[in-house]
Amino acid sequence: MSVFIYFKVHFNGFWLTSVLFQAVCSLLSSGSLLIHVCFQIRLFGSVTIKTLVFPSETSDSYVEMVPLKPLQLKAFTLCMRLATELKGEREVILFAYRTGDYDELNVWRELDGRLSFYLSGDGVFFQVPELGALKTHLCVTWDSSSGAATVFMDGRKSLTKIYKKGHTIRAGGKVLLGQDPDSYLGDYDAKQSFVGEVCDVNMWDSVLPDRTIKDLVSGKRVQRGNVFDWETIQLKISGTVEVIHREL
Amino acid sequence: MSVFIYFKVHFNGFWLTSVLFQAVCSLLSSGSLLIHVCFQIRLFGSVTIKTLVFPSETSDSYVEMVPLKPLQLKAFTLCMRLATELKGEREVILFAYRTGDYDELNVWRELDGRLSFYLSGDGVFFQVPELGALKTHLCVTWDSSSGAATVFMDGRKSLTKIYKKGHTIRAGGKVLLGQDPDSYLGDYDAKQSFVGEVCDVNMWDSVLPDRTIKDLVSGKRVQRGNVFDWETIQLKISGTVEVIHREL
Amino acid sequence: MSVFIYFKVHFNGFWLTSVLFQAVCSLLSSGSLLIHVCFQIRLFGSVTIKTLVFPSETSDSYVEMVPLKPLQLKAFTLCMRLATELKGEREVILFAYRTGDYDELNVWRELDGRLSFYLSGDGVFFQVPELGALKTHLCVTWDSSSGAATVFMDGRKSLTKIYKKGHTIRAGGKVLLGQDPDSYLGDYDAKQSFVGEVCDVNMWDSVLPDRTIKDLVSGKRVQRGNVFDWETIQLKISGTVEVIHREL
Repeated sequence: MSVFIYFKVHFNGFWLTSVLFQAVCSLLSSGSLLIHVCFQIRLFGSVTIKTLVFPSETSDSYVEMVPLKPLQLKAFTLCMRLATELKGEREVILFAYRTGDYDELNVWRELDGRLSFYLSGDGVFFQVPELGALKTHLCVTWDSSSGAATVFMDGRKSLTKIYKKGHTIRAGGKVLLGQDPDSYLGDYDAKQSFVGEVCDVNMWDSVLPDRTIKDLVSGKRVQRGNVFDWETIQLKISGTVEVIHREL
Repeated sequence: MSVFIYFKVHFNGFWLTSVLFQAVCSLLSSGSLLIHVCFQIRLFGSVTIKTLVFPSETSDSYVEMVPLKPLQLKAFTLCMRLATELKGEREVILFAYRTGDYDELNVWRELDGRLSFYLSGDGVFFQVPELGALKTHLCVTWDSSSGAATVFMDGRKSLTKIYKKGHTIRAGGKVLLGQDPDSYLGDYDAKQSFVGEVCDVNMWDSVLPDRTIKDLVSGKRVQRGNVFDWETIQLKISGTVEVIHREL
Repeated sequence: MSVFIYFKVHFNGFWLTSVLFQAVCSLLSSGSLLIHVCFQIRLFGSVTIKTLVFPSETSDSYVEMVPLKPLQLKAFTLCMRLATELKGEREVILFAYRTGDYDELNVWRELDGRLSFYLSGDGVFFQVPELGALKTHLCVTWDSSSGAATVFMDGRKSLTKIYKKGHTIRAGGKVLLGQDPDSYLGDYDAKQSFVGEVCDVNMWDSVLPDRTIKDLVSGKRVQRGNVFDWETIQLKISGTVEVIHREL
């Protein structure tokens, strides 16, 4: 008896494929697995990424993120890694996308520690562990067709809430980290500003599978964001924001 | 030099084994590992399981679980995935097994957020992170011979407490999710009812190894419950309980 | 086409290497990966280690740990697994290293639940999830050259604080678990004593990479501590401390 081995190795986004892999293994995936063994290995080296540090409470420090495509969205997954020691009775803005008159998509830590997001109007709330000094991998997902809204913290998924079924997020605004604009790019409130570290902000125009989100948590860069991709993102920094580079 | 490869592939409970595996690898496991390489690979696809949603506080919504064998137990492991946003000064019943006159095995979230379980009498308490909107994989283990009682949350094990050494849980009762019966299948109290999502309730008549519990957390269905097996369980639903299907 | 397979198997600190691995795979690591496949597999069996249980609040129960080398340190990683149900307004000593007149390195749970450490003088504080009945894998790292101080809980890294840049920890003292000496091996305060379980206390004279710390959390004994190695450590027990053996 013989065992034939075909392999496909994925290293940080670059595929090394044995010549027979495509031919044989694509057959196998639609057929039966008998004596052929197809290895599809993903190797992940460490990645160095930029991290934004907001060292103190201000009303003028923020970072604008330039999207890869307009944010006309009927579904999204938004992920980031963040740590903040802000506590007590204080709101903290985590992500703000505003068009001329509307807060299209704002993500908040609420006064009482809950996480929330708002799509032009009332928000949806999740009672989760408090953000703190330990870095949290946070994802928010929403799908217009079902209205399903969830959050993930370090890969743990929340219960699902039904929110703004049928809604569409509008294109044409600006995305900021660090401040919540109460008018188009202005009227910032220091008491809502973000203080701490944030990095690896990625966004997709679809809801990623739970397993993909777990892979993201463990640093597997399986799928690059198609709305924001932190590895190639263009940032416009205003005020006092430090950019440091860390191994993920 | 040659390398001989024998493989055994486990896919969601179904083994694909190379003809030589049994012969060669069983020898190897009792001998020395030299140039033979035995792959025993477990593949886990995603599993779709039913989830129970208790949408609101009631005194009449519950689910009876039919066991695979009588609950005459000198040891057990009881696991479930759950999320609840109930908070504040309120007890929450997580699992209730009652015979005619006794609460044989009740699992609670206490007023102060601690987890506890009771084997006909006083309980044992664990100070753990609060349950919330994020789904928690919870296990409770107990062994009569040592009295060792522990809880696991998302695979993290608690310190061990000595509780009811020598005790035996009695057979012949009913197991409920959602309500705590203060008499045999009756006298429910809405203020103790469960509100939220619960699924993947499995029970074994032994204490599983820590590593097996970690495998369960990550969705590896390594060992089916022999008292309750959620994938095949028979449920009897009363009142307002929604059954939805989710990928684990 | 052929695939050549070379393997290197690591089992709990013991390497089984195919004769060609060294030759071929060392070439490969500096060259290109084409049709040779090098397996470097680490197998980890379960390990049984001793656990210290401090059953109650005392002013005379402690464990002295004998180091493998003097604690003259310009950098360190200190890790341990611990569980404690002490709560409320109470400080808890987690690790104390004192020379004649100085608390050279003390790790505390503060009154308000924060974790902190002190290098002869004011401390550095981290707002993290509360310690509780679930075992926490805790690491503290510090590097004199940058002053970078971080904590890790269950592999989650905190934000970095700059603390005591240029400082050196002095050799010649004693390391205790369970009590904080306010003079050299004396003046213990029961209200600061440790109550609960602690094990797997390891220390290195360098800052370990984040990934190594994640491996330690999951029980991979990839690198033994060179200041303290819990598997071989010499302990001197005073007062009421129980030593039990548990599978990790």
